[in-house]
Amino acid sequence: MDRVDVAILGASGYTGAELVRLLALHPGVRIAALTGDRKAGQTMASVFPHLGGLDLPDLLALDRVDYSSIGAVFCALPHGTTQEVIAALPAAVKVVDLSADFRLADVGVYAQWYGHEHKAPALQTQAVYGLAELARAQIKGARLVANPGCYPTAAQLPLIPLLAEGLILPEDIIIDAKSGASGAGRSAKEANLFCEVAEGIHAYSVANHRHAPEIEQGLSAAAGRPVVVNFTPHLMPMSRGILATIYVKTAKGATAADLRAALVRVYADEPFVRVLAPGLSPATRHVRGSNHCLINAFDDRVPGRAILCSVIDNLVKGASGQAIHNFNLMHGFPETTALTQQPLFP
Amino acid sequence: MDRVDVAILGASGYTGAELVRLLALHPGVRIAALTGDRKAGQTMASVFPHLGGLDLPDLLALDRVDYSSIGAVFCALPHGTTQEVIAALPAAVKVVDLSADFRLADVGVYAQWYGHEHKAPALQTQAVYGLAELARAQIKGARLVANPGCYPTAAQLPLIPLLAEGLILPEDIIIDAKSGASGAGRSAKEANLFCEVAEGIHAYSVANHRHAPEIEQGLSAAAGRPVVVNFTPHLMPMSRGILATIYVKTAKGATAADLRAALVRVYADEPFVRVLAPGLSPATRHVRGSNHCLINAFDDRVPGRAILCSVIDNLVKGASGQAIHNFNLMHGFPETTALTQQPLFP
Amino acid sequence: MDRVDVAILGASGYTGAELVRLLALHPGVRIAALTGDRKAGQTMASVFPHLGGLDLPDLLALDRVDYSSIGAVFCALPHGTTQEVIAALPAAVKVVDLSADFRLADVGVYAQWYGHEHKAPALQTQAVYGLAELARAQIKGARLVANPGCYPTAAQLPLIPLLAEGLILPEDIIIDAKSGASGAGRSAKEANLFCEVAEGIHAYSVANHRHAPEIEQGLSAAAGRPVVVNFTPHLMPMSRGILATIYVKTAKGATAADLRAALVRVYADEPFVRVLAPGLSPATRHVRGSNHCLINAFDDRVPGRAILCSVIDNLVKGASGQAIHNFNLMHGFPETTALTQQPLFP
Amino acid sequence: MDRVDVAILGASGYTGAELVRLLALHPGVRIAALTGDRKAGQTMASVFPHLGGLDLPDLLALDRVDYSSIGAVFCALPHGTTQEVIAALPAAVKVVDLSADFRLADVGVYAQWYGHEHKAPALQTQAVYGLAELARAQIKGARLVANPGCYPTAAQLPLIPLLAEGLILPEDIIIDAKSGASGAGRSAKEANLFCEVAEGIHAYSVANHRHAPEIEQGLSAAAGRPVVVNFTPHLMPMSRGILATIYVKTAKGATAADLRAALVRVYADEPFVRVLAPGLSPATRHVRGSNHCLINAFDDRVPGRAILCSVIDNLVKGASGQAIHNFNLMHGFPETTALTQQPLFP
Repeated sequence: MDRVDVAILGASGYTGAELVRLLALHPGVRIAALTGDRKAGQTMASVFPHLGGLDLPDLLALDRVDYSSIGAVFCALPHGTTQEVIAALPAAVKVVDLSADFRLADVGVYAQWYGHEHKAPALQTQAVYGLAELARAQIKGARLVANPGCYPTAAQLPLIPLLAEGLILPEDIIIDAKSGASGAGRSAKEANLFCEVAEGIHAYSVANHRHAPEIEQGLSAAAGRPVVVNFTPHLMPMSRGILATIYVKTAKGATAADLRAALVRVYADEPFVRVLAPGLSPATRHVRGSNHCLINAFDDRVPGRAILCSVIDNLVKGASGQAIHNFNLMHGFPETTALTQQPLFP
Repeated sequence: MDRVDVAILGASGYTGAELVRLLALHPGVRIAALTGDRKAGQTMASVFPHLGGLDLPDLLALDRVDYSSIGAVFCALPHGTTQEVIAALPAAVKVVDLSADFRLADVGVYAQWYGHEHKAPALQTQAVYGLAELARAQIKGARLVANPGCYPTAAQLPLIPLLAEGLILPEDIIIDAKSGASGAGRSAKEANLFCEVAEGIHAYSVANHRHAPEIEQGLSAAAGRPVVVNFTPHLMPMSRGILATIYVKTAKGATAADLRAALVRVYADEPFVRVLAPGLSPATRHVRGSNHCLINAFDDRVPGRAILCSVIDNLVKGASGQAIHNFNLMHGFPETTALTQQPLFP
Repeated sequence: MDRVDVAILGASGYTGAELVRLLALHPGVRIAALTGDRKAGQTMASVFPHLGGLDLPDLLALDRVDYSSIGAVFCALPHGTTQEVIAALPAAVKVVDLSADFRLADVGVYAQWYGHEHKAPALQTQAVYGLAELARAQIKGARLVANPGCYPTAAQLPLIPLLAEGLILPEDIIIDAKSGASGAGRSAKEANLFCEVAEGIHAYSVANHRHAPEIEQGLSAAAGRPVVVNFTPHLMPMSRGILATIYVKTAKGATAADLRAALVRVYADEPFVRVLAPGLSPATRHVRGSNHCLINAFDDRVPGRAILCSVIDNLVKGASGQAIHNFNLMHGFPETTALTQQPLFP
Repeated sequence: MDRVDVAILGASGYTGAELVRLLALHPGVRIAALTGDRKAGQTMASVFPHLGGLDLPDLLALDRVDYSSIGAVFCALPHGTTQEVIAALPAAVKVVDLSADFRLADVGVYAQWYGHEHKAPALQTQAVYGLAELARAQIKGARLVANPGCYPTAAQLPLIPLLAEGLILPEDIIIDAKSGASGAGRSAKEANLFCEVAEGIHAYSVANHRHAPEIEQGLSAAAGRPVVVNFTPHLMPMSRGILATIYVKTAKGATAADLRAALVRVYADEPFVRVLAPGLSPATRHVRGSNHCLINAFDDRVPGRAILCSVIDNLVKGASGQAIHNFNLMHGFPETTALTQQPLFP
């Protein structure tokens, strides 16, 4: 297998480290450059000792990367800083962007939620939203893939097929999501200290989280009309994992069994999405470290309603794993390359 | 203060230990008897080393208790075993029952959810449901108080006043609840091992949990008509705490501010219930070890909807603390006696 | 009981909050002033929501405190900043200092470990080292008590009596200590993020921790000659608690039973120190939230050696609880006032 | 690569599941049989949902395995039950035994620690102790490999080379070890419940743990004379990982730098053992899920002493990973086959 030279921009964060962890097993990749502005000059082993056994380049400042041999870039920079960086990349370089910068097709919606005008609107029109299972064809031909957010991945995988088939109503969709602390990244904030997160749970950004418009964009397309959702994230005392518990109204008299059957059909041949046997409840610990998504549907006690549960590892299927899945699609590698690791339990 | 001799039946479980922890600071109580069938004959210090500094009677078998001096019984026995035990107690003994055995006024509903006929239906008619803030007068005159379940406490405290005032609709109430592992008790089950609970979350008993009818009983009374709710509990990697995130439809054009204002009015003088300042999100870690309940209301992005958050410590306000609150009411002690400990954070 | 007006300097950290939590139940204390420089002007409820049910003054800048009514100060400021603050306090104010600034009697040793000359050497000569059980008489007469560090408390309580009685040798004492993350304080550092602490353990400051000279000071005094110890702290994935596992050589043919018997004699009447029954292993979870210290001694397989285990809650017996114990001694309150809360388990 | 048909006996425990997780990526292995007596007849997906994406045989009762095609057995049965099982296997089947049954060369020592006579003493004489890095040649020719215990692996990897080179003294070696809860297995015991393990630490089996004689066997061989060690294990609130903090007396005037240099020499070409840069402290979280062992040496404050730290994942390098390493050696596969996964952090 010919190797693609890859640069990871923003390798000093958790998603950057996770890209390195997974790509270390990719026979078609050579990690040629790693950047980390605040930690430029340091070895990756000093920033992430768990990766100390690998032969990796040291961290560079972003503007020091030599792109002459680079075939692909994974961009794991903070939201808002990415647009100009990607706009300045050589045209031959394919990009998977893990930030939110190119996820919203409507730059007006972007400006409304992110507080500033989009800085690369032309590039936005070329960006493909990389929900891998549901946009394969477009991803294969893309130069720039906007990798979905962690919550939007967990929410859209069960909801989009059901909305598309008309089995659930687009009104009153309630997404109660629970995330591990790695979703907040590695920056040093009081709210993310061990003592502030352990032994407790609370909702945050209630009805006000930036992943809401991203979810609505996907659901609206599936439903064929504008969808507004309730999306309520919670911070959990665990490092990895997202559980989305989704409350929906069913249509056409559909039962949970019908919803489940539809999801089984859609995802039957997918290597990473698994609809559990009836009655089994998806648990985040059963996807930890893997690119898997587990889904199930349950009847509600309230007539005409159902409950969907969906779990992913936010750093893998919700970030770096899906990014590699997209990379594989863009570069013609088998889809599961570097993504065959099984979940780590316990 | 004259002391009441108290027996705790089922003291070898977490709620039993929690009763002892709290009552150790109650100037009106003498712990006269502790039972624990499987551990009869052992010292409390060997069963719960954290209580080893107290002067406590050893654990007895249930049938060895001498009730001659006992004025009050806390019954923390497993569900289903309690009815006959309490029916056999001397009539002069006042009882707070922490099990589910006397919580459902309709013994038919009990039979349906617990799988057997109620064994003390006459006693059931005398039992008062002890949601302390909302049933004070009845509790004061009661001989037998059925202490509310942990989830029902967290759910009913915000919902009952709002339903009673007609500010929310009784339809489509969705209660997404997250609980620490102590709610499952101390019995040795694979599902409750550290490795099975840590670093993960999942829903359980989806649409099928026995606390649903208990919640519906209270909400139906408040709404003045039958209410069916969605109640979905989740097991969290923490020892204590319940967060109920509740999704409701508002009535009369009420906003979250209106809901909050109503709750402020109802709970203004309550020592244990606190409505947070607008925008603040209740966190279970901020009630840990205390008898507190924190509540807030938030507007939803979906028009006509709102979100309520409510947190308690499941072992205190959701069990032993509320039981002592009820005991204080029944015996004429100041309500906060033995319940003034502040939350333990971090 | 007459109330003493108390100021807590540095109330925005964990030990400050813990002082407030405990003093809330002290009938002889009125919290008159709270300071927190970076958070001056904020309510205590916004900085520590778990204390939101109390009637507390807002946080002040340090230089805004009016000491006219203040009878006692708890000083919970960072190490190194405290000497000048305390030197500037009115002479009538009694002080318990929770920092390390007055713990080392020899200001030369202080300078060596803290990297700068001591700024109040005269005051240092008046300071009493407040290991409460072992320095009662001096503490009662002190104006300034240096509250022991968390690790030194856990290490010295078992070791000092055994050295003083000559039952163990002063050579080759090895103190392997494990601490919860709250020992690192509330400042936002990458190393203390949830994801960096959870699911792991490592040693830190190996053979180089500032608590070593503090421990050696106490042990040297007990042994009657200079003692150098191995002290190796570890960071644990828990919020509270310290376990010191101490490896010693016995003298005079003493067995673990002899060591245990000596400790039982010394601590027989102590309300906060408990020597466990033979064979029982002290666990940090059994002292959580309390001012308790549990100790035991075990024979080693290696002839002539023994193992001591000692546990405390680092924020209580290792900081704020012991500070209140010292305050009670200094002001003539019963020693256990505000310190009778039992441990919180689970 | 030709595939070896493999049977895993005792696949319903954590080490069994971990063998499956790792072997799923082994191109030379076909998992042909899985046993689990109590769970016989169940699918592996129901017992371990995280493995639900694999095509695995259902669990069999132990006596139902057809060995006709089996080339290798991994035996992960409880201690004490294994001797007769392995004695009854066909002679052509190679065995890696993860239990303690064949680890002690002296069946008299076995009897003393395990409370019964060894049931296969003849087989014991053929068993090779599979500390992979230090017994390669013997392992390659073995039919039966006794896979080392988790604690013994963490302790012996740093100690054996240093004893063999005479850089440390065999007297007064103190091994303070900290383990995650998965070391206790998956059986349902009160002591291993989430609430009993979370937020706390304690020592257990003090001076009395069965891994002590296993460690002493290896150290005695290295030292050339009988060694008795202090070995004190602690239970930690984490699922995976062992840290051994080892306190030694140096010989020949050796410093920590000398010890480190010796370890660097010994392990320079090893794929799984890494001596960290001077001053860096090995953390269990940096080996999680991997077959890695990280080691370092530190000078002690006490003259003539040093501190060694060693970390492994108890389920991988301390059990299933090392077992596969041994399997690879026995069957001529490249040593790192199926063991190249990087650690999972955070």
